[in-house]
Formats: sequence, structure tokens, C-alpha cells
Amino acid sequence: MRVSLVGGSGYAGGELIRLLLGHPQVEIDQITSESRVGEYVYQAHPNLRKQTALQFTALDQLRPCDLLFLALPHGEAQKRIAQFAALAPRMIDLSADFRLRDPARYEQWYHKPHAAPEWLAQFVYGLPELHRADLQAARYASGVGCNATAGLFALLPLQRAGLIDTEKPIVIDIKVGSSEGGNAPSLASHHPERSGSVRSFAPTGHRHTAEIVQETGLANVHLSITSVELVRGVLATAHVWLKAGASEKDLWKAYRAFAKDEPFVRIVKDKTGIHRYPDPKILAGANFVDIGFELDEATGRAVSLCALDNLMKGAAGSAVQAMNLMCGFPETTALGFSGLHPL
Amino acid sequence: MRVSLVGGSGYAGGELIRLLLGHPQVEIDQITSESRVGEYVYQAHPNLRKQTALQFTALDQLRPCDLLFLALPHGEAQKRIAQFAALAPRMIDLSADFRLRDPARYEQWYHKPHAAPEWLAQFVYGLPELHRADLQAARYASGVGCNATAGLFALLPLQRAGLIDTEKPIVIDIKVGSSEGGNAPSLASHHPERSGSVRSFAPTGHRHTAEIVQETGLANVHLSITSVELVRGVLATAHVWLKAGASEKDLWKAYRAFAKDEPFVRIVKDKTGIHRYPDPKILAGANFVDIGFELDEATGRAVSLCALDNLMKGAAGSAVQAMNLMCGFPETTALGFSGLHPL
Amino acid sequence: MRVSLVGGSGYAGGELIRLLLGHPQVEIDQITSESRVGEYVYQAHPNLRKQTALQFTALDQLRPCDLLFLALPHGEAQKRIAQFAALAPRMIDLSADFRLRDPARYEQWYHKPHAAPEWLAQFVYGLPELHRADLQAARYASGVGCNATAGLFALLPLQRAGLIDTEKPIVIDIKVGSSEGGNAPSLASHHPERSGSVRSFAPTGHRHTAEIVQETGLANVHLSITSVELVRGVLATAHVWLKAGASEKDLWKAYRAFAKDEPFVRIVKDKTGIHRYPDPKILAGANFVDIGFELDEATGRAVSLCALDNLMKGAAGSAVQAMNLMCGFPETTALGFSGLHPL
Amino acid sequence: MRVSLVGGSGYAGGELIRLLLGHPQVEIDQITSESRVGEYVYQAHPNLRKQTALQFTALDQLRPCDLLFLALPHGEAQKRIAQFAALAPRMIDLSADFRLRDPARYEQWYHKPHAAPEWLAQFVYGLPELHRADLQAARYASGVGCNATAGLFALLPLQRAGLIDTEKPIVIDIKVGSSEGGNAPSLASHHPERSGSVRSFAPTGHRHTAEIVQETGLANVHLSITSVELVRGVLATAHVWLKAGASEKDLWKAYRAFAKDEPFVRIVKDKTGIHRYPDPKILAGANFVDIGFELDEATGRAVSLCALDNLMKGAAGSAVQAMNLMCGFPETTALGFSGLHPL
Repeated sequence: MRVSLVGGSGYAGGELIRLLLGHPQVEIDQITSESRVGEYVYQAHPNLRKQTALQFTALDQLRPCDLLFLALPHGEAQKRIAQFAALAPRMIDLSADFRLRDPARYEQWYHKPHAAPEWLAQFVYGLPELHRADLQAARYASGVGCNATAGLFALLPLQRAGLIDTEKPIVIDIKVGSSEGGNAPSLASHHPERSGSVRSFAPTGHRHTAEIVQETGLANVHLSITSVELVRGVLATAHVWLKAGASEKDLWKAYRAFAKDEPFVRIVKDKTGIHRYPDPKILAGANFVDIGFELDEATGRAVSLCALDNLMKGAAGSAVQAMNLMCGFPETTALGFSGLHPL
Repeated sequence: MRVSLVGGSGYAGGELIRLLLGHPQVEIDQITSESRVGEYVYQAHPNLRKQTALQFTALDQLRPCDLLFLALPHGEAQKRIAQFAALAPRMIDLSADFRLRDPARYEQWYHKPHAAPEWLAQFVYGLPELHRADLQAARYASGVGCNATAGLFALLPLQRAGLIDTEKPIVIDIKVGSSEGGNAPSLASHHPERSGSVRSFAPTGHRHTAEIVQETGLANVHLSITSVELVRGVLATAHVWLKAGASEKDLWKAYRAFAKDEPFVRIVKDKTGIHRYPDPKILAGANFVDIGFELDEATGRAVSLCALDNLMKGAAGSAVQAMNLMCGFPETTALGFSGLHPL
Repeated sequence: MRVSLVGGSGYAGGELIRLLLGHPQVEIDQITSESRVGEYVYQAHPNLRKQTALQFTALDQLRPCDLLFLALPHGEAQKRIAQFAALAPRMIDLSADFRLRDPARYEQWYHKPHAAPEWLAQFVYGLPELHRADLQAARYASGVGCNATAGLFALLPLQRAGLIDTEKPIVIDIKVGSSEGGNAPSLASHHPERSGSVRSFAPTGHRHTAEIVQETGLANVHLSITSVELVRGVLATAHVWLKAGASEKDLWKAYRAFAKDEPFVRIVKDKTGIHRYPDPKILAGANFVDIGFELDEATGRAVSLCALDNLMKGAAGSAVQAMNLMCGFPETTALGFSGLHPL
Repeated sequence: MRVSLVGGSGYAGGELIRLLLGHPQVEIDQITSESRVGEYVYQAHPNLRKQTALQFTALDQLRPCDLLFLALPHGEAQKRIAQFAALAPRMIDLSADFRLRDPARYEQWYHKPHAAPEWLAQFVYGLPELHRADLQAARYASGVGCNATAGLFALLPLQRAGLIDTEKPIVIDIKVGSSEGGNAPSLASHHPERSGSVRSFAPTGHRHTAEIVQETGLANVHLSITSVELVRGVLATAHVWLKAGASEKDLWKAYRAFAKDEPFVRIVKDKTGIHRYPDPKILAGANFVDIGFELDEATGRAVSLCALDNLMKGAAGSAVQAMNLMCGFPETTALGFSGLHPL
């Protein structure tokens, strides 16, 4: 299958290229980057030196292909989605443009009207664990918000089991690394400033809230995002009050049911050792999403934890997993890297 | 004034020594460390090389002095508090032994009975911003829990202004550095493991909850502690629901009232720049406690933030500030270091 | 092929297991660890959770197999090498025990006599780029010293081209991460101490000097090792004086000749961009060795650079590459991971 | 004394302001910053919040004062030095503009002619340990190069004692943090790129070589600079061959003689413990320069180590120390901060 990538010089684009180069059913045809036309791919993604001879091309030289990945800055894909659709029967857009189904919700969180609202219904939210069957039948899939994905996996086991007391607020306190901000330098990302900081990036109002609300139907969800010293990785710490009587056993049952048939979901909850709960540290490059929990029986508060790599399960990894489903490849193809320890 | 320090080879002890060496009214008489008897102080605290010729002595060689700092591991001071009291008219204990007033609460959180419950009432909780007048009259003061201190300063401005809806749960999600764990190495603190980790250290059940409950009277407080890549520093992110109608203006008023006369409390809430909220990164070595907030008017959630250095305002800094009050010295003596930027 | 691993709970052991799990021709039979008998492999190597159901076994339960990897602490394998040889026709020892050919040199650098000197001649130094043909015929191979490997690759292109002025001293200043020290915690590796340190670990006298001298024949080689903030990775900065008249062109020729047919050797020397020279940062988990240089024509000093992952090309990666050669598998099997960017 | 600072929004400027605010004999009159006119000083230097009410002013509003610090980008001060001299009887320039005495050497290393060569002879190189008497009599002093300072202190003890074999090359391999690069963001300083990198920043040709050659008279000096994960700090590892027969005792004597009367020079060379050699980690904010050595008697190589904080002893600290000398204040005034441990 011939695949092209629009906007491939960013970090998520780089991960996508790395994964696709290892995919036996896929051949990368073109990768565009307006700012790097003619440069070798390894100049933007130095880990790919000697791995590919591909060079970046201009957007207006894009040829038809079998599947098109879009990795443009938020707001760009929606402006020419019809144009892209004319080039490929299948598309996966990693930006935030086609994740929300409701144009009103899009406008509420992104503060301007959507430029192609009629296309929203054609996209499936690209999280296989939520929309596997839909993706198998889909032509168009969105990517996922990295923080949204972490928040979702922290809530879904509890929600599916009907354990959440929805009267009480759900607080999701999310810790993130610097690669979430993309590859454009600024004073905020300047190493002497960013290094070692614990920066309250979005105490309230983070846009990924909209994805969590859409995909869970839970209204009472409150996010805060804090940047910590880390390049890759997200940890979502969800504080959830449970219905009266919910026990540790009920939670184990809920998490096990959720993870059982999922190739990329792992429960991390050990009684001993130093890896007793999910930690993004060991997930760099892996497509796993690690979940765990601790229940405070005295107060009914469950702390549900989810760790993932924002560039993998929170972006390129989920996108390739979605592609595998859309194209009938085995779902885990090209996603076998286990992550490194120590790192 | 001649001051001695029991248990001075740990990190908080080192900070205490650094501060006392710069205190014009204080002369350090003795510093004990059972494991380092005869060693120079700079061998444990390399920043003090060429700053002092003091050597560690054994506990049983302790002489009477004017004020005794205790920096023993939790549980040790209570076993021989009467002995220590015989040596000095004033004592400040940095451990957790004398922070809680109620022996029952102590037993509930520390899982064993207190060894000297009759002494609890004689200690003042050593946070000057809460107990200034009491400290001025006190002979004995406790230290403060670093996470408790961060949590307290996140809640107090809102509580004093009567803004908190106490029906709703208060979630305090705290991010901490590795120096909180003290100076005893373990696999958990082994650099290849600890470096870059985002470790859910205490999702529920952290003991400092007891101090926050005692000092605020708020019952519905829920802590989670996460270790991040950082040596010094604490950031408390408190998620607090406010009474209906509370506005941004009300919050500004509350924080300003709280910080107004406090030499070490700063409000950090800027509209622009990269230091818009409190960040422990710039507080290493300083006694400041930085507070700030963001209000989500749509949901009534206030995110109240507090950053501090766990070894300073969360330990040695508050202890010296308490000493200054107890001894009638100007409150800010020896605490003037502003912190470094960048770091 | 059935492979077992003696001493598999350390960091190099973990990487070896990760690689072998992805090797199509290999099945892991047993992994021993005296301190973790009965534990699951993922308890020591958390990245392997859900990747293998293997448990650690005791050394005395070791069965015969087709190839035995030894990853014991230095000094242990030599004590019972005959015993191990009875279990498997092929062995690869990752420790320092069988890297040096000359027992006298071993004693000089390791400060005690070798316990099995008669075995030294039977081992091939396990660096495929130096001993490819020998390895193809070998039954026994040693591992490589991580710093030695970095130093070797910095010198070899220049040496092979006959460019080095051997009268002048060769200084190799090596920067290393904390995983080099293994997984035993100590005060030196305690996170608050090790984090951010620039520690002169071995200004002179590092044992890996012996390997470089043996494998290059250069006598005038001087190492210094400095630990920097990094978990994985080595950068060797070799300061080498060249014979009069050596030009930039000569060096390019030398490096290209060296790298030409090597699947894991990359030249990194770009005129622009931020990845102009080898940097271990992007090599975590990859088997690449990146080399580059800068020539100061005015003084005749060449600075030759080599970056690698100490746990991969400097340990487990080279060992698997050696195994592939010894067993007739394609040399790059299971070593295809490209490394991550950013990280 | 009324002091003003030209170009005070950079990192060295920030440190200078921090020090001057704590100087009992100094009052800061004005601080200029063309890009931040009207902003509060704490907006650029967040550690100074609540420490000063000063605002940045424009250069053309500069008033006469008693001493003028210049902290402009390299190349700027020389263009209008006469103008500045008209405003103040004393000047200290932190840039590289007036460090070299010989205009030809300036042109050789900075690749353009000096714009005010006639002023070069009027400036004293601002390192008190080298030019104490000259500074006491000086009206104008230059700042120091941070890497040059580290290299100088690594060589000076050996050179003064006449121990160096000047026939052999001297290699100074320097490890530096990210604050050396200043506060202008770029892709090179973008956190996901810079974090964890071991980047060969200047394998050859670093300009600070010129300062070392000028101040030591040693011609055969070769620098390489490597950026490591660190914000503040420099470690110089100097590889120096000694004259035949030089012993460990000779070196101790040399270092002790050098450090004896210097308030800011410490010898760090312990047989045990984890702080056996100089490490910049514990020097952040301190004006100390830590020196140490290891001698390889078999080869005659001494590895001489020097650690310092590039923003303090390598910039603002030395500048304030020079000011103290020029103005007759006690030399250590405002420079008493000991540094922090752990950090």
C-alpha cells in the first residue's frame, strides 16, 4: 500500500515515519514539509539517518496514494479537506480538526467556527479501543488528543463498569512532557527556562476536555495540565468518586474486563517493587497504555492512573493502529516495540 | 545565642546549618550524627566546604545550649523528648513527631501510638503564617510537613475569605522532587530508575493530610503525591469548588489579603510571560512560598497553586523563621536568599 | 535455537532479553537470577510486562542449551567457566572476564590474577566490526566494554588510514550516563546526588584503556571518564594529533572507508542543523554507533567523536550481533530499532 | 555608590542584579533593556519578584552614575565605549569586547577588526585571582569568559609551580550547561532537543582559547566544548603532561600555594565520599571556583579539574568581585552565598 504524509517534519510526523518504515505492508510515497522542501527526512528526524533516503516534497507536488496521513498544525486540514480527499480514498488526520462530532462544541473549545463542519460526521474518532468496529469500516479517521487519550483510559474502566458517582466532580490532573508543545522553539521551551520546571500550563480550560466529554458522555470532568521535566510522556491522575459500596475487588474486575482483549492496554498495579503504578518513563516509543488505580475506601475516592507516550498512543501509534484496522492489517503490525528500561 | 542540632547529616539538617551559619545572632555549638561522628560537616554537605570547620559529634556528647534543633528520623524524637528538653529551654523539632495535637489522629495516620502524648500540647505547629503570635510565646515548636505546607498555602487564602464550598471534595494533587525522600539510597532513588520518572508515590493516604485537616479544619481534603524529575521543590495543585457567585475579583481580594503582610508569601499570577503561575524551579534555596490561582467561572472550580522548596519553607526555612519569632529576632533574619534564575 | 541467560536481572541482561524476545530464530529457555528466583522477568524489567511470561530461575537449575549468555558481575564467570562450557557449545560472556588476551594485562588492570587464564585464548573479542570473520568461526566470544567501544570507534577510522601521529598523546575524554554503573543503588547513584552532576568518575586509570590498547595496538592512549546527567549513552571525544599534512579530505576518506560496509556505523558530520555531530541522546535502544570528526588544521588536532548506547552497542547489542555471526543468522537480525527522536 | 547596568535582561544581567541588590554599599540606579522598556525587572528575572520595584529603562535615558556595568551582546559595547565612558568614571564590561589586549588576536578569534582598539589597553582582565593589584587601581575592567575562567583555574596552579611540560599538548575538555547560550530561544535550545543531549558544541576553535593563551602565555592549549544536561555550570577537564619527576606531593603543594589566600578558591580532592572532585552541581549561585587533580604517575599525565558557575565566577560574580576591588570594598562583599546541596 502506498501511503503519503502531509506535514511530516514535526515530532508526531517523525514517529509516524519511523513506524511506517517498519511496516511490511506499507510503502511511504511522499512526505511534505513546506519549510524543508528538498531536505532529507533524517535532517528533521536524526534517528532516521541511514534508515531512509526520502526527501521532503512540497504540498503542491502531492500525488494520489492509497492512504493519506495529515499532520498539519491545528486548523489547517479543515481548510482543504476536500482537496486532500480527492487524492486518497482513506485519510487519517492527526490534528484536532476532526475529533469532535459537534461543530458547536468545536467552536466552544477552539473559539472559532469549523471551516468544514459537513465533514465532521464522516470521521471516526481514531481510538481503536473505543471504535474498533467503526474504524474497520471507516474511510476517514481523526487522530486523538494525547491528554484526552490519557484521561479517557483513566476513566473508561470505571465508567464501563458503572462504578462512577457522577454527582461528584471528576478531576483529572495531567502531567506532561515538553514534546507535547511541538517542535517550534519559544522562550517557554528554551532549555534554561523549561528544564526542571513544574509549570501550570493549563490549570483550567484545556481543549482536550471536549474529547473526553464527547467520548465518555461524562459532563462533570475537570482537567488541569502541568508540564514537568520530561520530553515524552503523559500521566493522567484521575480523582473519581465511586458509588457507595464499590470495593477494591470491583475495581480489579472493572480494569481486568477493560484490558482483557486489548493488545496495548496493560494493568500496572503491584504490591511491591518500584513500578507499582503506571509511569510514562518506560513507555517512550511504545504503543502501550498502562492503567492502574488506588482506592481510598474510607472516602470513596478512586485515583485512576493512566500513562502513555504522547507521540505514540497519544498520536502516531494510535494513528497506525487505526490504519491497520481500516486496511485490514493485523492490528498490532509495526507497533511491537516494547519500550526501554532504564531510560 | 548558642544553638545545637541533633541529627544534622540529612538534607534538611544541611539546609539548617547553611542558614544558621549566616545568622548573625546565632552560633552553632554542636551538630550530632551517629553515622558520621568525627567527620567534617562539609563531608555530608559539600556546599559548606571552607564555610565551617565544625565536625559531627555523638548524641551522647551533647551539651546544654540555648536552643536545640531536632532533625531525627520520624519517630525518634518522641522517644527521648524529655531528655532533650533537659538540655535546652527551647526546642524546634523538624520531624513529624509533634505536629499533630491529637494523639488519636497521630495513631490514625502513623499507625502506632505516640510515645509521648503528654508533650503534644506543648508544641506549636511551626508555620509562622498560621501561628505567629503563638510562636513568639512558645518554647517548643514543631516543624512542618513539606507537602502539608504547600497544601495549606493553596487552601488558606480561599478558606480565610470564606469562599470554599465545603460540600464538594477538595483535591490536592502534589508534585514533588526526590529530596523529599531524604538521603538514604534505595532502588527507588537509584538514578537510572528515578530519573525522568513520573511516579505515583502516594495516590491516597498521605500522612500530611492530617496536618492540613488539623490546621484548616476542612475535613473533605484528598491528597495525591506524584514524584517528578526534580530534586528540590513542591507544587500543590488544589482543585477547590467555590461558593456560588465567587468571582475572579473575590479571589484576587482573598489572595491579596492573605499575602499582604507576609514577608515570604508572593502572589504569582501574570497574564503574560512564561512565569505566570508558581513554579518551584526558581525557589531552590529561598524561603518564599509562591501562590496563584485560576478560576473556571463556568464550573466554579478554582485551581489554587502553591510552590515552595521542600527543604526551605517546607522544612529548614520555616524552622529558622520560627526560631526568629521564638527568640525575638527580626523574622526574616538569615532568610534573605532570593533564589536563582535560571536554574 | 534455545538460548539461556545467566544473571539476567541487571540492565544489560534486560536489554538482552528484550532483543532476544524479538529474534525470530531464538527461543529463550531460562534466565537465572539468584536474588529474584521465582519472580517474573517483568518485575526486574518493567518494559517487558505482558511481553513474556518467563520467570527467573536459580543458577543450579540451569539446563543445557544451544547458546549461553553470561551476564554476571565482573570476576564471576571466570570462576566457573568450565562448568558453563559443559552446558552449551557456544557462549557469549558480557562481563570483563574474557576481553583481554593477555593474563598479565588482565592482572595489571584488574589488580588480581585471572582465575582461568587458559580460557582467554579461546574467546574472540566480541566486536563484529573488528573480528567479524573470527566471530563467524568462534564458539566463545567476550562482550565489549562500553567506554572501550566508544573509544575504539573514535580511533579506528584514523588508525586504519594511518593518519595518527603516534608520538603525540591521544586523549579520550568520555562522557557517560548513570546506567553504566549497573542497577545496585548507592549514595553515588542516589537521585538527589547524581541528578545534574558532572562527576569526574575516573580521571585516570580506567580499565577499558586496556581493551583499547589491545585492539588498536596504540600505546599512548589516555582515558578520562566523566558522569553527566543521562541514563543511557556514551560520548567519546578523542583528541588525536595527525601526521603532518593530513587534510579534511583525508579524514572524510578515512571515515567513509571505515563506515562503508558496516550496517551499524553512521557518519554524523553535517554543516548545518542541530545534529551536526554524534550525540548519544538519539541512540537509546539502537545498535548504531555514530562517528564524526572536526579537524583543526592550524594545530593538526583532530577531534574524533563517537556516540553509542552503552547497553546496546556497548553491551547487549554487540552481543546479539556477535551471536548472529556465530550462528549464521543475518547479522542485523533483532537489531533494527532506529532509536527515538525527540527523547 | 550609584551603579547602573546596560543590557540587564539577560541571564548574566539577572545575576548581577541579584548580587547588587544584596550589596550594602551599592544602590542600583538604572537598568536598561531595549526590548523590555517599562517592564518590571522581575518579569525578566522571576526570582526577583518582590525583591525590587525597578523597571527597565531605555539606553538613551541613561544618567551619569558612579560605576557602569555593561552586559550587552558581544560586539556592541566596543561601538560606543566612549559614550559610556562619558557617563561613569568606572566601567566593567561583561562582554568579550575588552578581554583581549592585542587587537590582532581579537581579529583572529572574532573574525572582524575591533571597533575601538585604542581602548583595549585601558581595560584590566577582570579576574581578581590574576590581576588583584591592577584591579584595585583600575578604572575599567573586562569581564571573563566562563570557559576561559574554568580553563585558567585548571592550569594556573600547575603553571605557577612550573610543573607543566610545555612541549606536550594541553587538552582542555570542557562540559557546559545551557545557560551559557544566553536567553534567546532557538531550535538548538528547544527543550525536547537540548534535554539530555551530549552535544559537541565546539570540538575545536572556541574563542575562549584566546583568553587562556593571553593570561597563561601557554601556546599549546586546545579546547573542546561539549554541552551536557545542565543549566548552570562548567567543568573543565584539563589533560596536562608534567615535567619528569613531578609527584603527587608536588601537585598538592602547587594547588595549596595557589588556593591559600584566595577566598573563593577551594581544593576538592577527597579520598572517599561522592564529592571527591570538583562538580559544578553544587556551585549554582556561588562564587566559588573548585579545583582538584589526579595524577597518573605511570604516564606523567595530570588531569586537572575546575568547576564553577558560568553565571557567577564565570560572569557576574567575578564582575562584582572586580568592582569590590576597584571601589575599595571588602573583596567578598555580596558574594557570600555558599551554594545549595542537594540540587
